[in-house]
Amino acid sequence: MKLIAVTNDRFKVDHLTKIMIDTEPFVDYFIIRERTKTVNEYIELITALTEAKVSKDKLIVNDRVDVAVASNIQRVQLPGHGLSISQAKDNFPQLLAGKSVHSAIEAERASYAGANWLLYGHVFETNCKRGVEPRGLSELQEISKKVTVDLYAIGGIKTEHIDMLHDIGVNGIAVMSTIFESDDPVSATKEYYEACRQAIAYQKVERS
Amino acid sequence: MKLIAVTNDRFKVDHLTKIMIDTEPFVDYFIIRERTKTVNEYIELITALTEAKVSKDKLIVNDRVDVAVASNIQRVQLPGHGLSISQAKDNFPQLLAGKSVHSAIEAERASYAGANWLLYGHVFETNCKRGVEPRGLSELQEISKKVTVDLYAIGGIKTEHIDMLHDIGVNGIAVMSTIFESDDPVSATKEYYEACRQAIAYQKVERS
Repeated sequence: MKLIAVTNDRFKVDHLTKIMIDTEPFVDYFIIRERTKTVNEYIELITALTEAKVSKDKLIVNDRVDVAVASNIQRVQLPGHGLSISQAKDNFPQLLAGKSVHSAIEAERASYAGANWLLYGHVFETNCKRGVEPRGLSELQEISKKVTVDLYAIGGIKTEHIDMLHDIGVNGIAVMSTIFESDDPVSATKEYYEACRQAIAYQKVERS
Repeated sequence: MKLIAVTNDRFKVDHLTKIMIDTEPFVDYFIIRERTKTVNEYIELITALTEAKVSKDKLIVNDRVDVAVASNIQRVQLPGHGLSISQAKDNFPQLLAGKSVHSAIEAERASYAGANWLLYGHVFETNCKRGVEPRGLSELQEISKKVTVDLYAIGGIKTEHIDMLHDIGVNGIAVMSTIFESDDPVSATKEYYEACRQAIAYQKVERS
C-alpha cells in the first residue's frame, strides 16, 4: 500500500516546506493542493523542496497543470472540477495524470481516457467534508473490480482501515488532515507508513 | 487606442457570458480573470462564448495558462504573482503572453524576456484597489519611452483620461469595474470604445 499526503492549504510556504521535508521519508507522494496560493508561492515551495533534495518524482501538483509543466513536475492530480483526463493528456502528453472521482461511472470514464491513477472519496467521515455523507466502501470495491489502474482511497482513513482497504484491492491511501493538522505530523505520517507497509507484508505472508 | 475589458470574478458563468457577448462588439480583448472559478467553469464560459461566435482571438486568460492551452486560446495575461514571461515562453512557446507590471524595472525585465504586451497599473484611484496608493502617470510615461512592446494602462481610467494616456504613448486601456459593475455594461463599454477610437482619429488629424 502506498501513502499519499495531501497538503491542506492552511500554512504559509515556509512552514509547509518544513512539514513536507520532515515527513518526506515516510511518504510515497505528496499532492500539493494549495488552492489559495499564487503561482509564485507554488514555485517557491517546489524550489525549496527540491533544494532540500525532495525528489520531484514524489510531487503531484493538484489542478494547476501549468505549475507542474513550468516546474518540470511530471505528475498532476485533476480534481472533479478540473481538466478531464483527455483534456490533460491531449494538451500535455508528457504528464502522468490522476483523476479524482466520486462514482464508479466517473472512475471507468477516467480510466478509459487514460488516467494513470484514480483517487476515490471521500470514503469515511472527515472534518474536511463536514455535512457531506461519506461514500463508504461498496462503490470503491466495485471500482477496484472494474479498473486496472492504480486506485487510491481518500477521506477519513485511519490506520486501522488500511488492511481492509488493501483487501478490497486498493493500491494506496491519501491523507490530509490527520497528517497536516496533527501536532506531530512526522509521527502521524510514520504510523500510516508503517500500517501501509505492514499491509503489504501481511499479504505476502498470506500468499506464501 | 485599444480597449481591454477585464472580468471581475463576481458573476456566475451564465450572467458573465451574457455581459461578454453583449459588450463584445466594442471590446478589443477580454481578460478573463475569474480567480474563484474552477477549471470546469472557465471552460464552460469559453465554450459558451465560442458558440456565440466570440472570437478566441479576443480572449486572454488571466493566470491559468493551462486553461488557455486546453481551450486553444493563444493569449495569456500573467499577473505579478504568476508565471514569469520566461517561464511561460519556455514551457508554452505557442502562446502570446502579456505581463502585469507595477514598476519600470518590472516592465523592462518583462519586455526583455519577450513579453508581447505589458499592463501597468493601477494608474488612478479605483474601488478595486481601495487603500492602495495609485501609481500615477510619471512611471507609465517612463515605461512608454523605454519599451517598444504594446503598453496598456489599468486602474480607475475614465473616458476623459484616454487622450492624455494616448499622448504619452500608451497603446490601450484596460477597464474592470466601470464596465462590469455598471448598471448598463454595454453603454459603458461603448463610451470607452468611442473615446478610444476618437483618440486615434484625433492623432490622425493632428499629424495630417
